[in-house]
Amino acid sequence: MAAPDLIVQNAGELLTLGGPPGPRLGAGMRELGLVTGGAVAAVGERIVAAGPEGEVLSAFPPSADTVVLDAAGAVVTPGLVDPHTHAVFARTREGEFALRVEGKSYEEIAEAGGGIRSSVRSLRAASSDDLLARGRATLDAMLAHGTTTAEVKSGYGLELEAEVKTLEVVRELAKTHAIDVAPTFLGAHEFPDEWRDDRDGYVSLVVDTMMPAVAAAGLARFCDVFCEEGVFTVDQSRAVLEAGLRVGLGAKLHADELHASGGAELAAELGAVSADHLVCASDEGIRALARSGVVAVLLPGTTLSLGKTAFAPARKMIDEGVAVALATDCNPGSSMTESMQIILSLASMMLRMTPAEAMTAATVNAACAVALGDEVGSLGVGKLCDLVIWEVDDHRAIPYHYGVNLVRAVVKRGRVVS
Amino acid sequence: MAAPDLIVQNAGELLTLGGPPGPRLGAGMRELGLVTGGAVAAVGERIVAAGPEGEVLSAFPPSADTVVLDAAGAVVTPGLVDPHTHAVFARTREGEFALRVEGKSYEEIAEAGGGIRSSVRSLRAASSDDLLARGRATLDAMLAHGTTTAEVKSGYGLELEAEVKTLEVVRELAKTHAIDVAPTFLGAHEFPDEWRDDRDGYVSLVVDTMMPAVAAAGLARFCDVFCEEGVFTVDQSRAVLEAGLRVGLGAKLHADELHASGGAELAAELGAVSADHLVCASDEGIRALARSGVVAVLLPGTTLSLGKTAFAPARKMIDEGVAVALATDCNPGSSMTESMQIILSLASMMLRMTPAEAMTAATVNAACAVALGDEVGSLGVGKLCDLVIWEVDDHRAIPYHYGVNLVRAVVKRGRVVS
Repeated sequence: MAAPDLIVQNAGELLTLGGPPGPRLGAGMRELGLVTGGAVAAVGERIVAAGPEGEVLSAFPPSADTVVLDAAGAVVTPGLVDPHTHAVFARTREGEFALRVEGKSYEEIAEAGGGIRSSVRSLRAASSDDLLARGRATLDAMLAHGTTTAEVKSGYGLELEAEVKTLEVVRELAKTHAIDVAPTFLGAHEFPDEWRDDRDGYVSLVVDTMMPAVAAAGLARFCDVFCEEGVFTVDQSRAVLEAGLRVGLGAKLHADELHASGGAELAAELGAVSADHLVCASDEGIRALARSGVVAVLLPGTTLSLGKTAFAPARKMIDEGVAVALATDCNPGSSMTESMQIILSLASMMLRMTPAEAMTAATVNAACAVALGDEVGSLGVGKLCDLVIWEVDDHRAIPYHYGVNLVRAVVKRGRVVS
Repeated sequence: MAAPDLIVQNAGELLTLGGPPGPRLGAGMRELGLVTGGAVAAVGERIVAAGPEGEVLSAFPPSADTVVLDAAGAVVTPGLVDPHTHAVFARTREGEFALRVEGKSYEEIAEAGGGIRSSVRSLRAASSDDLLARGRATLDAMLAHGTTTAEVKSGYGLELEAEVKTLEVVRELAKTHAIDVAPTFLGAHEFPDEWRDDRDGYVSLVVDTMMPAVAAAGLARFCDVFCEEGVFTVDQSRAVLEAGLRVGLGAKLHADELHASGGAELAAELGAVSADHLVCASDEGIRALARSGVVAVLLPGTTLSLGKTAFAPARKMIDEGVAVALATDCNPGSSMTESMQIILSLASMMLRMTPAEAMTAATVNAACAVALGDEVGSLGVGKLCDLVIWEVDDHRAIPYHYGVNLVRAVVKRGRVVS
């Protein structure tokens, strides 16, 4: 048996998040697989043992070449998974944020150059090198805050060339950055100015031209659509996602963010991997998500950043048996943060999720929201050795101690990266 | 003229917060004294020039010994002032946080060992060395997030010996830590178990014994009281604060946090330096604060941490001409954060304060809330050279980009300290 390349030992609380395949539901979201006095061993990129330290070390005694990390009694968890980000963009939009605080309407902000269309203009004008540099800085910050796997969407191009440019930047990030990246094609993020008078025409462009080209180039794993009043209708959203499914892209939806628009129901109908936002999801939509096993990705940072106090009904979802995950929604318009930690805090404070439920939602359930539950999100034999050593000795302190970075060290694929 | 010891140059936005003595009111809270292309020069601990770079450098050309910091186009602001903290405590209370998320009542949490009385038990049992070590770590985190001056309260002792022990730790921190500390005696934070059946007796102990002893030892600059239904009545609060005023301690109040209890009105009556919390302040209380010039210290992180969505009426206060300041309320029970940055974000997102108003509230107005407006909180000639160089080039990005630390460097009394 090979000696381990890495041992993390002396974890005061080792949260393995172990269990059967698939997301955790209901009371299962409170089961963290907590081992007091735990250790993890890895050979190469993968975990060969995780559990009580004595068992791990006797099965995999370190050799002289083993990297040994002493957690010194601290909490050790899986690396966090951020399953909903728009992390490749050209410019921040703090001016628009300030206008929104002053009570300016969406229309006034659009007139002042704000909104998604602002990001479309700047992304189309940006070079790939600039997008790559900014994207890398964003992923660096994510990693420093404990995220080891992230989904990244396109959607500020809204034309074939700029969408491909974005997804090529995402691919380059996936190749070169420590964070594992799951790429999503979001050509149906908004209607670009040049198609506002022919919305069905833009849907056809996405369905008939962009989707096949993106899939043929292997640039995306998922497709997504902003299903919402005033943006893509349920029928338009269905057409987009079915086109994606035909070419092998898993379905994701921006669903029921601002109104109960039937997005959750559509996600269930299509067997989507995830339905995201869901602030206004109907009771029937929530039951449909539970029945169909679609992961609900909640984004409380977006609600906060938009200055709203009505958050997604997380408790109702958990009680109904929906698999709930959490994400930053990292984007320059409505949630400018790279940190899953503040999302965990908001989940406990505003969504009333217990610290254990929030941790489950940010690890194993988030991994399932990007169809990577067999690879990441839990510390089990055969999984990638992605983990975080925290500055705290009680996992409940992670959402409790808010607004600061509590990460001491990050391990990605068996290597210390932060 | 002495050559400068420190030059900070090439500030894309230098926010001086300059102006007449005293806090900024109303529309004045949006006046940041913004200089594009600014610089600051210091001799020893104090600023000798702050303004357009050309003027500063021609008046104070650097010598070979001058430390020159290139802000590289970034935002430079005064060091942040945190005017309300309980930063000396023995233990965090994340278990209680988790119980609160689960919906446990205050009584249930108290039975499970939570509440202020929990912190009293642990502080009384703690050694001064342990309190000092933990307090130093807390102040280190504050400094790393841009705070250069902080108020620190006692109030987990609730007996002479333990209150003095706390304030001696605060004094040691004030002497040895880079952060300037304003100490506050909060013997009237809660009724200790041994006095719950004789509340007026405890008030007499605070007034007749503890207050004179603390003042005689020079251990505090302010006194404070938790004026609230079920805690200290308005009459008891008045007795405590008047006793403080008699021995030279400025008055502060925990006022109207949970109910409109008359705290704001009492603050105005006594000419308090600040009234803090004010979530439930009455309209008459707000007008009284405006008339009397009492600074309102708002603590949105506490509202968030307690899982509430009704925040203090900041807009009404600003419109009525109240000087509004912001603080972390850093404490283990209801706001476990050292970062004024997340407070700035919450101020814009939840209190609807513009980025400029929030910055004013966290600098010059916060300095006035601890009676240090003539020393810190703005970048003017003669003030202490306390400043932050940020990672951003637009000050509106500070509240916008939330949950991460945007500080690049901190200067305290003319020295680079973080």
